[in-house]
Amino acid sequence: MYQKHVIHKLLQLAFEEDVGTGDVTTQAVLTGDEVGKASAVAKADVVVAGMDVFKEAFLFMDQTIQFIGHCEDGLGVQKGNILAEISGNLSSILTAERVALNLFQRMCGIATLTRRYVDEVKETGAKILDTRKTAPGLRYFDKYAVRIGGGTNHRFGLYDGILIKDNHIEAAGGISYALDRVYRHLPHTLKVEIEVKNLQELEEALTAGADVIMLDNMTVEHMKKAVEIVNGRVPLEASGNVTLTNVKQIAETGVDFISIGALTHSVPASDISLKIE
Amino acid sequence: MYQKHVIHKLLQLAFEEDVGTGDVTTQAVLTGDEVGKASAVAKADVVVAGMDVFKEAFLFMDQTIQFIGHCEDGLGVQKGNILAEISGNLSSILTAERVALNLFQRMCGIATLTRRYVDEVKETGAKILDTRKTAPGLRYFDKYAVRIGGGTNHRFGLYDGILIKDNHIEAAGGISYALDRVYRHLPHTLKVEIEVKNLQELEEALTAGADVIMLDNMTVEHMKKAVEIVNGRVPLEASGNVTLTNVKQIAETGVDFISIGALTHSVPASDISLKIE
Amino acid sequence: MYQKHVIHKLLQLAFEEDVGTGDVTTQAVLTGDEVGKASAVAKADVVVAGMDVFKEAFLFMDQTIQFIGHCEDGLGVQKGNILAEISGNLSSILTAERVALNLFQRMCGIATLTRRYVDEVKETGAKILDTRKTAPGLRYFDKYAVRIGGGTNHRFGLYDGILIKDNHIEAAGGISYALDRVYRHLPHTLKVEIEVKNLQELEEALTAGADVIMLDNMTVEHMKKAVEIVNGRVPLEASGNVTLTNVKQIAETGVDFISIGALTHSVPASDISLKIE
Amino acid sequence: MYQKHVIHKLLQLAFEEDVGTGDVTTQAVLTGDEVGKASAVAKADVVVAGMDVFKEAFLFMDQTIQFIGHCEDGLGVQKGNILAEISGNLSSILTAERVALNLFQRMCGIATLTRRYVDEVKETGAKILDTRKTAPGLRYFDKYAVRIGGGTNHRFGLYDGILIKDNHIEAAGGISYALDRVYRHLPHTLKVEIEVKNLQELEEALTAGADVIMLDNMTVEHMKKAVEIVNGRVPLEASGNVTLTNVKQIAETGVDFISIGALTHSVPASDISLKIE
Amino acid sequence: MYQKHVIHKLLQLAFEEDVGTGDVTTQAVLTGDEVGKASAVAKADVVVAGMDVFKEAFLFMDQTIQFIGHCEDGLGVQKGNILAEISGNLSSILTAERVALNLFQRMCGIATLTRRYVDEVKETGAKILDTRKTAPGLRYFDKYAVRIGGGTNHRFGLYDGILIKDNHIEAAGGISYALDRVYRHLPHTLKVEIEVKNLQELEEALTAGADVIMLDNMTVEHMKKAVEIVNGRVPLEASGNVTLTNVKQIAETGVDFISIGALTHSVPASDISLKIE
Amino acid sequence: MYQKHVIHKLLQLAFEEDVGTGDVTTQAVLTGDEVGKASAVAKADVVVAGMDVFKEAFLFMDQTIQFIGHCEDGLGVQKGNILAEISGNLSSILTAERVALNLFQRMCGIATLTRRYVDEVKETGAKILDTRKTAPGLRYFDKYAVRIGGGTNHRFGLYDGILIKDNHIEAAGGISYALDRVYRHLPHTLKVEIEVKNLQELEEALTAGADVIMLDNMTVEHMKKAVEIVNGRVPLEASGNVTLTNVKQIAETGVDFISIGALTHSVPASDISLKIE
Repeated sequence: MYQKHVIHKLLQLAFEEDVGTGDVTTQAVLTGDEVGKASAVAKADVVVAGMDVFKEAFLFMDQTIQFIGHCEDGLGVQKGNILAEISGNLSSILTAERVALNLFQRMCGIATLTRRYVDEVKETGAKILDTRKTAPGLRYFDKYAVRIGGGTNHRFGLYDGILIKDNHIEAAGGISYALDRVYRHLPHTLKVEIEVKNLQELEEALTAGADVIMLDNMTVEHMKKAVEIVNGRVPLEASGNVTLTNVKQIAETGVDFISIGALTHSVPASDISLKIE
Repeated sequence: MYQKHVIHKLLQLAFEEDVGTGDVTTQAVLTGDEVGKASAVAKADVVVAGMDVFKEAFLFMDQTIQFIGHCEDGLGVQKGNILAEISGNLSSILTAERVALNLFQRMCGIATLTRRYVDEVKETGAKILDTRKTAPGLRYFDKYAVRIGGGTNHRFGLYDGILIKDNHIEAAGGISYALDRVYRHLPHTLKVEIEVKNLQELEEALTAGADVIMLDNMTVEHMKKAVEIVNGRVPLEASGNVTLTNVKQIAETGVDFISIGALTHSVPASDISLKIE
Repeated sequence: MYQKHVIHKLLQLAFEEDVGTGDVTTQAVLTGDEVGKASAVAKADVVVAGMDVFKEAFLFMDQTIQFIGHCEDGLGVQKGNILAEISGNLSSILTAERVALNLFQRMCGIATLTRRYVDEVKETGAKILDTRKTAPGLRYFDKYAVRIGGGTNHRFGLYDGILIKDNHIEAAGGISYALDRVYRHLPHTLKVEIEVKNLQELEEALTAGADVIMLDNMTVEHMKKAVEIVNGRVPLEASGNVTLTNVKQIAETGVDFISIGALTHSVPASDISLKIE
Repeated sequence: MYQKHVIHKLLQLAFEEDVGTGDVTTQAVLTGDEVGKASAVAKADVVVAGMDVFKEAFLFMDQTIQFIGHCEDGLGVQKGNILAEISGNLSSILTAERVALNLFQRMCGIATLTRRYVDEVKETGAKILDTRKTAPGLRYFDKYAVRIGGGTNHRFGLYDGILIKDNHIEAAGGISYALDRVYRHLPHTLKVEIEVKNLQELEEALTAGADVIMLDNMTVEHMKKAVEIVNGRVPLEASGNVTLTNVKQIAETGVDFISIGALTHSVPASDISLKIE
Repeated sequence: MYQKHVIHKLLQLAFEEDVGTGDVTTQAVLTGDEVGKASAVAKADVVVAGMDVFKEAFLFMDQTIQFIGHCEDGLGVQKGNILAEISGNLSSILTAERVALNLFQRMCGIATLTRRYVDEVKETGAKILDTRKTAPGLRYFDKYAVRIGGGTNHRFGLYDGILIKDNHIEAAGGISYALDRVYRHLPHTLKVEIEVKNLQELEEALTAGADVIMLDNMTVEHMKKAVEIVNGRVPLEASGNVTLTNVKQIAETGVDFISIGALTHSVPASDISLKIE
Repeated sequence: MYQKHVIHKLLQLAFEEDVGTGDVTTQAVLTGDEVGKASAVAKADVVVAGMDVFKEAFLFMDQTIQFIGHCEDGLGVQKGNILAEISGNLSSILTAERVALNLFQRMCGIATLTRRYVDEVKETGAKILDTRKTAPGLRYFDKYAVRIGGGTNHRFGLYDGILIKDNHIEAAGGISYALDRVYRHLPHTLKVEIEVKNLQELEEALTAGADVIMLDNMTVEHMKKAVEIVNGRVPLEASGNVTLTNVKQIAETGVDFISIGALTHSVPASDISLKIE
């Protein structure tokens, strides 16, 4: 996933933020000449995501560092396993450690959580979607991790997907008006998704030609009805209050997509630590 | 907390990321001339943090927007209350909404979680500390939110605090060697904190003159012993596996600080939504 | 069209590039206190595009400048008319002039050329599309000007639209393989467009479920056949060697879109000059 | 012409603009492991300019790409020839293609057009000059291409050359006043050029000591007279409404320089395409 | 001298550097609501330079600050006088103080030193020049201050002036070869200056048509001879080992310019302090 | 001392500033193919600082340059010695020369001056401190050079050290109030230093628990008294009007630190020149 124009920009920011004018502890305690080897160890079960970014963080600090990844993105690794080995100048490794881990742990955390949702719905045809509710500045990485976890990306920003929400509908004067205006203005590469709150709005959106319909905060019962009504004509996305507890039930209604903000806005970081040998 | 050189840089990044080449939905559905009013509503109990940032996000998008905050940072607000009202050009409000909310919800989430920890230990003298385990690029905002929640900031980066960890100690050849080297090299504005794994190391660190001692992953029993041994000579920081369940027990050992990575690396965003009227 | 995070970034670059360490001529000849008024005059017929950007360039230089636009984006203005009046500090106006004009003249040039193509096909149902063949760093502005000229934007970048080209097809092993792989991986907000070189490929693409089909460098005869075959099932985009001479003929084949790289890669700047009174 | 501090900055911008969060088509259709070879082919006669930049664009994307240029900047290449071969990871090549081509095609277009003007005047002593009418953000590259085409660069910005225009003259109260003020304030490394509209102003500028005189929009007759009057004392620059049709006639008046905004503000991109084998 | 695209970029850097994540002292000691007034006082005789930059630094921190400058750039002010008054939020003033002073004190220091050299030579026709030996990142400000002090700017960078040094001459194979090559390639807006080490080289440079000649490290006797030889045909610049002690003697040789690196590479900051009332 | 995220950012700025759109002299006089070798020679006795930065400047310009440093940072080198040899493309070397030298000469200048102060006090226990009075944008480099010269860094910015000055004390209502507020709010990694003007304030600060006390502009007599009073309980920093003449006398009072703004705000650059062979 290495894309220089994205990764280097973030690493520059992250090193300015964490290292700033220098790692005073390491500069004081080490001579700067010590070499050594560190292992990144999973302290909990983890779905690995961001191994390339983890590597780039160390190389950004010091290009002479040797990095050996023990697994590829997407692999589920059990607690206690070594994910990667980093060797070379010890001061460089210690100074880069936190920047590298903060990003890697977040990405693994997102992939791990996503995988749990994906596993829950694996016997249905539903796909797990992310949202734009990501940490500011990290969307590229957050959404990459969702894909690695088995999820599917919704639009990346306001620029690459149409999603007409209730506020847009009100401003346009109704669902059909909103859809009518959209179809006159937009790139033909984009589909048009619209949010509906109930079955009546669903019917209106279908009639007006929406490409995708989001069922906003509907009950499971209503979702089932919606699936019947639509009958495969357009994909349906369930949204709102999805949890690990109810996601399977929602998937079994027959909706095509289930979007979950918590995948990226409330994700626990994976527990990974760096041990110097 | 408004510091232009920090906030504008983040908002520039966040708008590039979310809005990019434009909000295609809003541009298509709205004429661009509609005006309106939106309310930011707490959908759960929340400790407010980042009201200024929330405001700046809308103003960054459009300087003609009117923003009225209904409360100050630090206030605990109950579910259902309006946190702020935003009025003006509707396209601007809708386009800025997600950038503004993503940052605000994260900050409120951190403050809310911090407050819970702080409340747990309020009858003890212990202070709740954050760590450097923040989302890359957001440390300034993450740590601000911790303060608002009643927590205390540990060092911001590698540049503004000495924390000698086990890896440093090994590289230096032991605790007293490490401390000896540090004291010869460092800014006199910084204290020296050192991590110890057991009571023997604690004694060595005390003898060698550490200013602050971190008890790394010790049992509650050992922490109590550590407090007795130190007897107020230096502050003690408990670290490792702190949860809402055990934080009070840890605080009651008499340690001065309890640091908790989860405050910023595994924080659930506060549920806040924007309603257009 | 004023979007701060885009416009200010470009203006910063443009002023660094053109003014750099200072306008040595103006600094030497003027005292810096003179005030005056300048008119931006159309020296040829022009479709106006970028009036807001033109204004922002002067204000970026000097916030005290008064700018009065005489027309809105999209208006066709005849040679000799005044497009805008700028008054205030004369040194500021003279120093900002070229940055402001370079961008405005390019945008007007694109809108003017686009309008000519749009007018050619206005009696057909075809829409004029732009491409990604824009001046590096100016895509946002180039594509905005296309819209103002009456054109329709194709995708903005590689991130907001799927366009499977011959190279992708070969790498995948054929049209149906390529489409099959795409449908398994992509955001449901995006349509899938595929390029075909002949009618046989067209049939294959239709069967495999493409959302949009691009006819690459086909003859007018083949395009007509393609329209018959498709019979409205998916939109068709004509691409390759489109000129003002043949665009109408192409449009009359019944294709839905005609994309034209020259709108942005070979556009003559509109002739606009600034006259100080 | 490789200057890291200029090229990398532009490439960063251009990749952010075109690739952004990722090339969704290539990511979906290719596995990421395919290797291949592409040829950049001239689809029309072209004067090559920017081969180094073309190469750097691919290397910026992926440092493992092999790039073999078949010719050097300045060479005139006939339609059908291969300009360069690029081999390596196919996803990288496809993703970098448009950024690389957009810049290279523009630079070749400028060099090709410049060469035509230069060829027109080659039997005279006149030199073809560019102007500051370049695409915002691309001046370095636009002016480089002019040099490659055989043209000569006028000043790069407001900072590296004095050019007193009619507006400056008016503000100063006349040609001699303007020149007088300039000579008191400016770097001794810069010459002073002044614009004159007629022969009377020419005389005044000569008397006042201008180093170079620009004849603004004069008729060919008046230019001839100007050349006689000046008689070699200072260089003369013809400016305004120069075309391929009249440039030779203008050159034959004996002026030293002919400046042409269209070289950079209205240039058709060279037709170059990338073929994957 | 206020040029947004230059000043804001520097202030952003300077505040990131000095304030970073926050002024911990001021945040701890003040409530943030105190208002007050500060005076910038000259603690030594000073030539004021950079009053606008000084003001902008405070406004960059906090737009509500009131700034009243008591004098204009270029004025010589005696020890003990108040240069400016700053009032408003006290936290903002204290936090911005050092950034504002560091830049202002350096600029005043340069202007003050320049004025001393200028005063030494005021009865001669010689002008005092700066060099490119400025503090990295501050050239715009350093050279502005030289002008304010009464000096004249040499070229700003390698891009806006030709200065052929001994190394260039050697590489070209001699003075006349070097000049010959330069005249074939360069913008006609630039003069050509060449460095000579002795009178023989001076003759060669004159013959070859140099516009300006730099006498590198010559004795006063040789400079006098050089002035006689040149006899006004081209300007002469004396360079090397100029001090306040010998500058007058050098000026009296009749050279036109005297360049002094120490004006910007070894300048003592002016002593200015901020007193809160 | 090579830290990519700091050095590359400065070099990007410095090359934009000095080289900008190109080194017109070198481009005109050289063909671009010449290779050669240059020596950096000390023209005066110098303490070397910044050898890595000096090297990086050439490599930033051209990665094929060979750089051989003849000594390490901290070495005192006598006039006439070669500090480094740079070989490779001659155009690259000549173009990078000034950027490389400007930074290196400043750093050596700071180290050389610092060493003189350090030598003056070497028979006492006093340490020489720098201040925040650095050139804007260069603090990292200025403070690095101080360390190399044998000095000790005071805080880097407002973010990594508490220093309560007279203005803070007034605003808080007195020394004990100020200290009281600070102790309630600050990171436990930071010590608290406070400025006192006389012995009475010293006593108050001691009582209130300051960690470090700065004696502001005290006489040598009062400093001696202060040392007696404090008797080793906290470190003392002497500040104000320190010169090479009086620094030893101040050190002999027994103070622990002596801070000197002139180390970085009024430092003469070391005389180093680059000779092409």
